[in-house]
Amino acid sequence: MPNAVSFSVNGRTYSPPARPIVVICLDGSADEYLDVALAQGRMPHLAQLSLQGWRGFARAAMPTFTNVNNSSIVTGVPPSVHGIGGNFFFDNITGQEVMMNSAQYLRAETIFRHAQLAGRKVAVVTAKEKLRDIFASGLISEGGIAFSTEKARSAVMETHGIADVEALCGPQPEIYSGEASVYVLRAGAALLAAGRADFLYLSTTDYMQHKHTPQEPEVVDFYAAIDEEIGKLIALGAIVGVTADHGMNDKQTAEGTPNVIYLETELEAAFGPGFRVILPITDPYVVHHGALGSFAQIHVPEGADVAAIQHWLALRKGITECHDRSTAARLMELPEDRMGDLVVASGRDVVLGRSPDWHDLKAIEGGLRSHGGRYEEMVPLLFSEPLNATYSGRARADVRNFDIFEITCNGTHTA
Amino acid sequence: MPNAVSFSVNGRTYSPPARPIVVICLDGSADEYLDVALAQGRMPHLAQLSLQGWRGFARAAMPTFTNVNNSSIVTGVPPSVHGIGGNFFFDNITGQEVMMNSAQYLRAETIFRHAQLAGRKVAVVTAKEKLRDIFASGLISEGGIAFSTEKARSAVMETHGIADVEALCGPQPEIYSGEASVYVLRAGAALLAAGRADFLYLSTTDYMQHKHTPQEPEVVDFYAAIDEEIGKLIALGAIVGVTADHGMNDKQTAEGTPNVIYLETELEAAFGPGFRVILPITDPYVVHHGALGSFAQIHVPEGADVAAIQHWLALRKGITECHDRSTAARLMELPEDRMGDLVVASGRDVVLGRSPDWHDLKAIEGGLRSHGGRYEEMVPLLFSEPLNATYSGRARADVRNFDIFEITCNGTHTA
Repeated sequence: MPNAVSFSVNGRTYSPPARPIVVICLDGSADEYLDVALAQGRMPHLAQLSLQGWRGFARAAMPTFTNVNNSSIVTGVPPSVHGIGGNFFFDNITGQEVMMNSAQYLRAETIFRHAQLAGRKVAVVTAKEKLRDIFASGLISEGGIAFSTEKARSAVMETHGIADVEALCGPQPEIYSGEASVYVLRAGAALLAAGRADFLYLSTTDYMQHKHTPQEPEVVDFYAAIDEEIGKLIALGAIVGVTADHGMNDKQTAEGTPNVIYLETELEAAFGPGFRVILPITDPYVVHHGALGSFAQIHVPEGADVAAIQHWLALRKGITECHDRSTAARLMELPEDRMGDLVVASGRDVVLGRSPDWHDLKAIEGGLRSHGGRYEEMVPLLFSEPLNATYSGRARADVRNFDIFEITCNGTHTA
Repeated sequence: MPNAVSFSVNGRTYSPPARPIVVICLDGSADEYLDVALAQGRMPHLAQLSLQGWRGFARAAMPTFTNVNNSSIVTGVPPSVHGIGGNFFFDNITGQEVMMNSAQYLRAETIFRHAQLAGRKVAVVTAKEKLRDIFASGLISEGGIAFSTEKARSAVMETHGIADVEALCGPQPEIYSGEASVYVLRAGAALLAAGRADFLYLSTTDYMQHKHTPQEPEVVDFYAAIDEEIGKLIALGAIVGVTADHGMNDKQTAEGTPNVIYLETELEAAFGPGFRVILPITDPYVVHHGALGSFAQIHVPEGADVAAIQHWLALRKGITECHDRSTAARLMELPEDRMGDLVVASGRDVVLGRSPDWHDLKAIEGGLRSHGGRYEEMVPLLFSEPLNATYSGRARADVRNFDIFEITCNGTHTA
């Protein structure tokens, strides 16, 4: 058993009791996924958890993307502070598009190293290697563990803090699968059972949610498998907190045609050439969403009439918000130096693209489900134990998904 | 049994099969209420319904108020078409505040009279008399029934199409109670069982949701009672569709202090006198929310710099949207001639007021829960039977709560 400790990071104090702490980010888990699987009796542990603990909604960080929200969860601060407002940004000074797949872009410390220094055995398991890279910084050298499903087989002590992942957790699955996510939770339970970690962050990938509506049997099976692992973690004595980085919606018409606004094409037709549209959902793993999400940063040409362009965009059907840089930075808590001149979000069923030829729509032939905007902002928030007086008030106010480490550590025992 | 008929209203065609049709609007039913009651096993019929039929989310009309959304549900059109953008508005021409508690303000026909003309026996039961007044227009003279819990005892054939409500449905309950809403559904089941109606709209009141968080036992008992009536309606052979007019959130700090922005006070301190703030949640029944919601219309003084005021409001923490009239009319589908110069919405935990002395905060001493903004926009959408191919696509796209009559009529049988 770990000792009860206390440590502070980025203005928050964490006082986990002498019990294992497990925070789970179920990537792309719109609440409907839980509703359907629960209704079918396929998530008995989650059903029990919501009875004995807490189930509600939390507000994610904008844009509702994976890196943005995982960065917020592991630092406890909004993107304006940690600096990760998307998977990449356009650097106005160097004139280059910059991929933010490593810790050097993170401007706030993660809570992991401080948990370690306070004496906790920390493990971070992610589905994708890109997230591991961001969060592992400073962790391994202190004896922590950080690996991904994607690179489970090649994890080595020096860089991952563990060398026997497959022996402990079973064979590494394919990254484009539901199993890639279940493996994350299974690894967490294995690490906990083996006494190799007692403070865990487990972050899955949303391949299944991009591919499947909540009603499809494949995804119900997936959530049943997730539930089994959550049950193991609870049985091992952990206080478990569960949230999501973002929701997920169909981004197509009722007939199944993708609803895409090609911003670069439309803007250049209206205002002439020179626009650069940054779609911060874009990453090396675009197979399941074709780099189409409900959020975009727009860099306008030199000398352009920004207000006129903003007005034009705001009038475009399907666009729900269009702000200038500083307004967007304030309303969406974004880092101003990594933004375009204008920021656009689109509706529940609408995604933003650059131009038709830039996107591979073959990748989404089975249907387009995606995220990034306001309609993927409200995500599930669950705790395995009842909340104390202080935190039950917090959980009902404008609670954020990145409050989850604080509430899991402090919220279920009387301080 | 009714005949299968077909009729068109406001550009939509309704083809209900030869079965009873029941549409239920559960006022203020944020999805969390269903989640908690379902987890506790207190809504067995809803559990069965979501297994055999459909459960998801729909987008309500803005502002997320009762009259606005009920008007949309019974006409199938947004507020820009039916004209009811709140409980009241300020008429710029006459200089008067106008309460919209009667049918004369509704600019679109309800589907009820057309259902009647097509041969259906229509009944509308509401908790509050104000809604009955809006929807009963033209209904009674054709043999329809329309009454409210609030005035159940005084319903007479001439104006309500029914004179024996208490004999049929039991004694009229207190309007400020959960029973006021359960009575609406019980009346629906009684009318259906007695063969007096086969096309019903049942619309409850949100007294319980303003007063209680989803976890409180009183509200769980309330939803259990609602569930029992839904079970009766299904057992009577009805196709049942369920939605809500708006969600509900705590509008207070984690410590329980109301989060109010007093707009008139703040605007007059910054820009001088002459502002008129319209809070369209205001109605004769303010006991449970103190006329505080997350939406306001602002009429600025003659000659004021509207853009400067808009900019100032947009910067105010807690305000999530501030639009000029025409932008708001477009983005929120509102009737432009019944609006202020500026439209403001506030955050998940924030409400908008006029000035401290205008509101009776004693009324909300138990805690402030309210609605009106975007964070009460996504509401439950349920159907008692599986959706056909056409409408299952509709239910997954940007489906609206005011699609519910069309989907309940057309969506569960193969046309």
